[in-house]
Amino acid sequence: MSNNKIIDLFLNPKSVAVIGASKNPMKGGHRIVENLVTNNFKGKIFPINPNSEGNLFGLEFKKSVLDIEEEVDLAIFYVPNRKIPHILDECIQKGIKGAIIEASGFEEVGENGLELRDQILKITENFSKIRIMGPNCMGLTRINGDSNSEDNERGGFFTSFGVFYKYKTGNIAIISQSGMLNGGYLMYMMEKYQDLGIRYSCSIGNKMDLSEIEFLDYFLEDPTVNVIAVYLESFKDPRKFIELCRKTKAKINKTIILVKGGLTPQGQRATLSHTGALAENSQLINAIIKQSGVIQAKNFHELFQFARTFSMMYNENKVMPKKGYISLITGSGGAGTIVADITAEYGLKFPDFSEKIYHRLVEIFPEWMPPNRFALVDFWPAMEKAMMNNNNPLDIMKTVYGFLIEDENIEGILNMMFCSKRWRSFSNYKQIVESINNASKPVFYWLIGEVKEVQRVSRYMADHNVPSFPSLEDMIKNFWILVQDSMNKNIG
Amino acid sequence: MSNNKIIDLFLNPKSVAVIGASKNPMKGGHRIVENLVTNNFKGKIFPINPNSEGNLFGLEFKKSVLDIEEEVDLAIFYVPNRKIPHILDECIQKGIKGAIIEASGFEEVGENGLELRDQILKITENFSKIRIMGPNCMGLTRINGDSNSEDNERGGFFTSFGVFYKYKTGNIAIISQSGMLNGGYLMYMMEKYQDLGIRYSCSIGNKMDLSEIEFLDYFLEDPTVNVIAVYLESFKDPRKFIELCRKTKAKINKTIILVKGGLTPQGQRATLSHTGALAENSQLINAIIKQSGVIQAKNFHELFQFARTFSMMYNENKVMPKKGYISLITGSGGAGTIVADITAEYGLKFPDFSEKIYHRLVEIFPEWMPPNRFALVDFWPAMEKAMMNNNNPLDIMKTVYGFLIEDENIEGILNMMFCSKRWRSFSNYKQIVESINNASKPVFYWLIGEVKEVQRVSRYMADHNVPSFPSLEDMIKNFWILVQDSMNKNIG
Repeated sequence: MSNNKIIDLFLNPKSVAVIGASKNPMKGGHRIVENLVTNNFKGKIFPINPNSEGNLFGLEFKKSVLDIEEEVDLAIFYVPNRKIPHILDECIQKGIKGAIIEASGFEEVGENGLELRDQILKITENFSKIRIMGPNCMGLTRINGDSNSEDNERGGFFTSFGVFYKYKTGNIAIISQSGMLNGGYLMYMMEKYQDLGIRYSCSIGNKMDLSEIEFLDYFLEDPTVNVIAVYLESFKDPRKFIELCRKTKAKINKTIILVKGGLTPQGQRATLSHTGALAENSQLINAIIKQSGVIQAKNFHELFQFARTFSMMYNENKVMPKKGYISLITGSGGAGTIVADITAEYGLKFPDFSEKIYHRLVEIFPEWMPPNRFALVDFWPAMEKAMMNNNNPLDIMKTVYGFLIEDENIEGILNMMFCSKRWRSFSNYKQIVESINNASKPVFYWLIGEVKEVQRVSRYMADHNVPSFPSLEDMIKNFWILVQDSMNKNIG
Repeated sequence: MSNNKIIDLFLNPKSVAVIGASKNPMKGGHRIVENLVTNNFKGKIFPINPNSEGNLFGLEFKKSVLDIEEEVDLAIFYVPNRKIPHILDECIQKGIKGAIIEASGFEEVGENGLELRDQILKITENFSKIRIMGPNCMGLTRINGDSNSEDNERGGFFTSFGVFYKYKTGNIAIISQSGMLNGGYLMYMMEKYQDLGIRYSCSIGNKMDLSEIEFLDYFLEDPTVNVIAVYLESFKDPRKFIELCRKTKAKINKTIILVKGGLTPQGQRATLSHTGALAENSQLINAIIKQSGVIQAKNFHELFQFARTFSMMYNENKVMPKKGYISLITGSGGAGTIVADITAEYGLKFPDFSEKIYHRLVEIFPEWMPPNRFALVDFWPAMEKAMMNNNNPLDIMKTVYGFLIEDENIEGILNMMFCSKRWRSFSNYKQIVESINNASKPVFYWLIGEVKEVQRVSRYMADHNVPSFPSLEDMIKNFWILVQDSMNKNIG
C-alpha cells in the first residue's frame, strides 16, 4: 500500500477497533469510544477488552479483534506497553492495516523500552504487515464539520485525552510530537478561538514507523489543507523533510510552520526523556530549518497564532505582502510610536503615501494637525474636523480605510481600535470589515476596550477572516510572517 | 512649594475646577465630571463653562474660576488649545496652584504650537505661578479603593477618556507619555485583569512643566507604591532620571519598568508627530536605560504584564531569584521540551535536584520511568504509580510541590496545568495555592483547558497573588525579569 493510501486509511477508516475500551470514564480507552460516538463517527466501532462484558454506548464488547466478523481498518491501542506485542500479532492475523499506539514506555525509558521496540519490529516484519502511528502519542483528530452543525458526521477523534465538544473544520493540519497539541492544547485553542478551522491533528509520538514525512507528503497534496503546523523533537529524515517543505515554493496555497523542540542542550535533555529523541547538532538543525524554507515559530502560542493568521489569509485569497510596506490606523500616538519601533525591528516599513492619496488625506485633516507624509494615520484630528463641520466622523473612518486600501505603496493595514458598548453608535466596524473583505490586502487589528465588547467585535471579525491580536507585538509579528513566507517562496 | 508637595496636590486635591465641563456626554469635559461624581471623589467639584447654564450632576456651572468663592487646588482643562492662555491667567489670579491641560496642539504641531507654548511660559512666569501637567495628556487617575467596595471615596479620575467602573487599588504607579495608558488601555487592562492593583496612573503628555522626574521622585518615597511602570518618548533630564532610578538599588521593595518609544528612526518619526519629542541618539538612549538599571519592556503588553508580576511578588514578600535556577512541573513532555529551550535562551537553568530530594522523588516514581535528575518533573508516571497502588494521585501532586519548595537548589517553580470541570475532583489547586503562599519562592502557571475553567482557576490564583500567563514564553519571560531585577540591584 502506498504511503498516501495508508495515511488515508488512518485518517478515514471505515471501521476501528478500540483496544482497551473501558466502562470507566477515567480511562483513556473509554474516552476514545466516547469521542467517536458523541461526535458521530460514521464508521464501525468495536470496543475490545477481554475483561469487560456487555456494552459501551450500545456497542458490544469483544474479547479480541479476532472475535470481530467484519473487516477492520484501524486499531487504536490504549493498553499498557507490555501487552502490545501480543495484541499486535492478533491484529496482523485479523488483517488490520493500521494501528495507533497511545501507550508510552518505549525509546524514552531506555533498555526495557528498546526491547519492546525490537519485538514489535519482529512481529510486524519491519512494519510490512501493519503500519504503526506512535507509540507514546495522543492519536488522530479529523474534523469534518462544525460542532454546532447538524451534519451527519462531524469528525473522527481518535484521541484518549478528552471528549471534544467545540470545534470547527478548516484548512489547518497539525503534525506533532507532543500529544498535548492533539489533546489539552487543541481543546483549549478550539474553544478559545472558535474561528480556528482545524482539518487534521496528528500526534506522531515516538514515530517508530509513520512520521512527519508521510503526513507532510499527504497534506501537501490534500486540497482541503492550506496550513501545516508542525512540532518536532527530531527529524526522521532531514533530506526528505527539506525536499517536501521546498515543494511549498511551487504552491501558492500552502504554508508550513515549524516549532522545533530541542534547539538548546537543555531542551535536548528534555526531549530524551519525552520522545527518546537523541541530541541533534544545533547547527545542523538550524541548517535544516533554513533550507526547508518553513516559517519557524518559537513556541506553541506562536504556532497556533501563525497558523490561524495564514488560515484566514488563505480563506480570503489575500495577496501576501512582499516588501513589508505596512500602514497603521490608530487613535493613539503612543501606540503609533510603539508600532513604528516594533515594525522597524521586524524590518517592516511605513512607506510614504502616494502623491494622490496624500493630497486626499490632507483635505480631510485640519490645518493645525496635517497627516503624516508616511503611512501612519492618527485619525483623531480628522474626526474632530468632521465633527466641527457637522460631518459624520464615521464617514471619515471609512474614507481613510478606502485611501489606504487604494494606495499602491501599501501592502497591508494594521489597526488599533477601542471597543465600547457606549460608543457603539460611533463604530462602523461591520461596514469596514466589508471593505476589508473586498480588498486584497491583509488587514489586522489590535482591539482594546470593554472586555465583552472586545470579544464581540473580535468574534465578528474572526468570522469574516479578519484577525485580531492580544498585543501590538503579536499583530506586527503576524504580519511579518506573511512577508517571511513570500520571501521564502522567492528564494531559489 | 516643593516638588513632592506639588505632586501631592495634583494627586490629592481637595477641590477641582473642570474647565470645559459640558452637559454633552460626548465631550471629554462631561466625562471628567462624571468620572469624579460616579467614583465618589470627596473633594469639591466646580464645573466651569461660560456657555453653560444650570447644573451638571447637581453641581452648578460657573462662567469662570473667578466666580468660585472657595479655594481651588487644581484646574483640569478640557478646552481647545487657543483658549488656554487666557484661562490660565484667570487660574493664576484665583490662586490655583496646579493645572492639568488635556488639549493637544502644542510642540507636536510645529510653529503655532510653539507660539502657544511661549505664551504659557510668559503667563506662568516659567511655571512659578502655577504648575502644569500636560498639555496633550489624559490626566490623572488615583485609586483609593476597589470599584465594588462600599468605601467612601474610591478614587480621583481626572481623565476625559471615559468613565471607569472596574478597578482595584494596589501597588502599581504608571507614568506615561501616551494618554492611552491612562485611558482606553488602562480601562481594558483593569477589566481584563481584575486583580491588577493600580494606585496611580499619570499621563504626562508633552511634559511642558512637570515630567517623569517629579512623579518618579514622589513614587519612590510613597510607601503604597512598589512598582513604577513608565512609558517615555523622551527623557526630560537623563542625568536626574538615572539618579532616581538607581535609588531603587537601595530599596528592596521598588522596581521600575520602562518602555521607551522612539528607539528606532521610524519610531522617532512617530514621536515627533505625537508628543513633539525630538529625535534622540539611539546609543545614548540605550546607555541611559542601561545605567538606570530599570527593567526594559518592549511594548505595552509586557509593561502591564511585568508590572502585574512584580506587584504580586511584592504583595507576597517573595524572595526574588538571583541565579535563575528554575524548575518545572508539567504533564506534557512537549511543554517540558519547549520550556527547557526557552528558559535556556533566557539564560535560566534547570539545576539538578539536591541528593535528598532526588531520592525522595525516585520513591514516588515508577521504576520504568524514573524522574529526571534535573528539575523538570513530568508528573504523569508518578500519578500512574499512585493510582496503580490505590493511592490518591492528588497527594502525589502535593508531595511534588513540597519537594520543589524545599529543595534549596531551586529558586522558583513554573507549571503547566490543565483545567477541566470534568476533572475538578482531580485538581487540588486550592491546597497547592496555600502551600505556594506559605513558601518564599515565586510560583508561576501556564493554564490551559476549558476556557471557563481556566478563567476560574486563573482568577482564584490571581486573588492569591499567584500569576498565570497566556503562553509558556510569557511565563518564562516574567520569571526572567525577576532575575534581571535582582541582577540590576546588585550591580554597582
